[in-house]
Amino acid sequence: MRTLPAEVALTRVLEWSDGASHSREDFLAAEEPLEIRVNGKPLTVTMRTPGNDEELAIGFLWTEGILESICAAERIDVSRDGAQRNTIQVQLEDAAFDPAEMQRNFFAASSCGICGKTSIEAIRRRGLTPPNACFRLDPEILCAMPDRLREHQQVFGRTGGLHAAALFNGAGQLVVLREDIGRHNAVDKVIGWALGQGMVPLRDCVIMVSGRGGFEIVQKALAAGTPVLASVSAPSSLAVKLARELGLTLVGFLRERRFVVYSNPERCL
Amino acid sequence: MRTLPAEVALTRVLEWSDGASHSREDFLAAEEPLEIRVNGKPLTVTMRTPGNDEELAIGFLWTEGILESICAAERIDVSRDGAQRNTIQVQLEDAAFDPAEMQRNFFAASSCGICGKTSIEAIRRRGLTPPNACFRLDPEILCAMPDRLREHQQVFGRTGGLHAAALFNGAGQLVVLREDIGRHNAVDKVIGWALGQGMVPLRDCVIMVSGRGGFEIVQKALAAGTPVLASVSAPSSLAVKLARELGLTLVGFLRERRFVVYSNPERCL
Repeated sequence: MRTLPAEVALTRVLEWSDGASHSREDFLAAEEPLEIRVNGKPLTVTMRTPGNDEELAIGFLWTEGILESICAAERIDVSRDGAQRNTIQVQLEDAAFDPAEMQRNFFAASSCGICGKTSIEAIRRRGLTPPNACFRLDPEILCAMPDRLREHQQVFGRTGGLHAAALFNGAGQLVVLREDIGRHNAVDKVIGWALGQGMVPLRDCVIMVSGRGGFEIVQKALAAGTPVLASVSAPSSLAVKLARELGLTLVGFLRERRFVVYSNPERCL
Repeated sequence: MRTLPAEVALTRVLEWSDGASHSREDFLAAEEPLEIRVNGKPLTVTMRTPGNDEELAIGFLWTEGILESICAAERIDVSRDGAQRNTIQVQLEDAAFDPAEMQRNFFAASSCGICGKTSIEAIRRRGLTPPNACFRLDPEILCAMPDRLREHQQVFGRTGGLHAAALFNGAGQLVVLREDIGRHNAVDKVIGWALGQGMVPLRDCVIMVSGRGGFEIVQKALAAGTPVLASVSAPSSLAVKLARELGLTLVGFLRERRFVVYSNPERCL
């Protein structure tokens, strides 16, 4: 049995390449929530790759201005909460620190900091049926999507700095595309558009994103009832876990007549 | 005078290519904070590219489970707050909605949702001197950094899914490298490491990131007192604005004997 570093997870996937598919093992970047607690109170949850968590906590507190002096950083007490791999305790001497006050300043963020539990429960509570189990997608149609996406991207060519999310129907036609500096925002815009059209749940559609397929993108695709989520790059371990748990077909590395299927391959293989 | 879409901003940059530099105009992906207010109360601030903000607000509320039914989405009232380009008002009929409760569930996130004002004020309050004005970096040394970064990336090769952040000294030697699913976390880990070594402010160092140079990465580099921030991809409009305001040298598109300087070029050109 191989020992893996905490940063990666090993899983079995199906790879489709130019008409043929085969099963193989694949490494995933590990993604897990880390709760940073300050003086016993939860301050933040960030989705991170495990490893160097003490550095992450101290660097975060410093760059957010919570740690105000280097002396304080040197005296900082960072500890694990026993078996709690994903909780880190920081003891600050500064009595002026008020987590409630800080939380207000952090604002909310959908893209990265959400542990996800609340949102997943909200999705389930809403009673959306699981993603359409009957939806089928020809691999050749899937392969043509990245080119369509790029053709329709208006801003990327000029700035090189925008993510795109697009909605495709089962015939591979592009329904709508949105661009944003935040991948999650591009997906929210697509879903917001679809809601306005009365199209949600998106039972016969594919959401495709230009970057990676992280946890929060899977979460959003599920919230919209989409059966297939495709990305041109790698998914995270938590994205794959959530997709498998809730029955979404998660496709990664979709480029040049090749893609990898991480969950529910029956819809496209 | 050209009219630009809201998604892009035009700016003047210096491009260095194989030993020669020239000035030219460049398009930047626009990045601005959007505050989503629900029933009159602020719920979230997200850094986004302006455009389709109503879709973004509705998609966000849906995917986060705040909008619970499609009927509610159809009756939703989304409006601008007069001249407030970056505020959007959503009126929900559901009296059960409690923004304070939701805010607690969102948790904090450094990576994307921060308006930034609070953090910038914290940086200033801390009395860090502006980034080292005397720091100088040879363009050839800068050009060699991406290869060093890739050589030292341990996990990316296997998973294709991790961002890297690295600290280099002025001689181009790699001091420390960290990888994470979140670019901001990788930067926090590097800065947390440097704090532990007593190296902050990083007056004679360069932070390099594998992806884009967004607003929050600039903010973190400034918090650590770094004079130069380099990325292999594009910065956002707000990243450039903040870098210019506070005197950070911001380098983008650093790859294959070419780079673009967006602010304070005197340190490397």
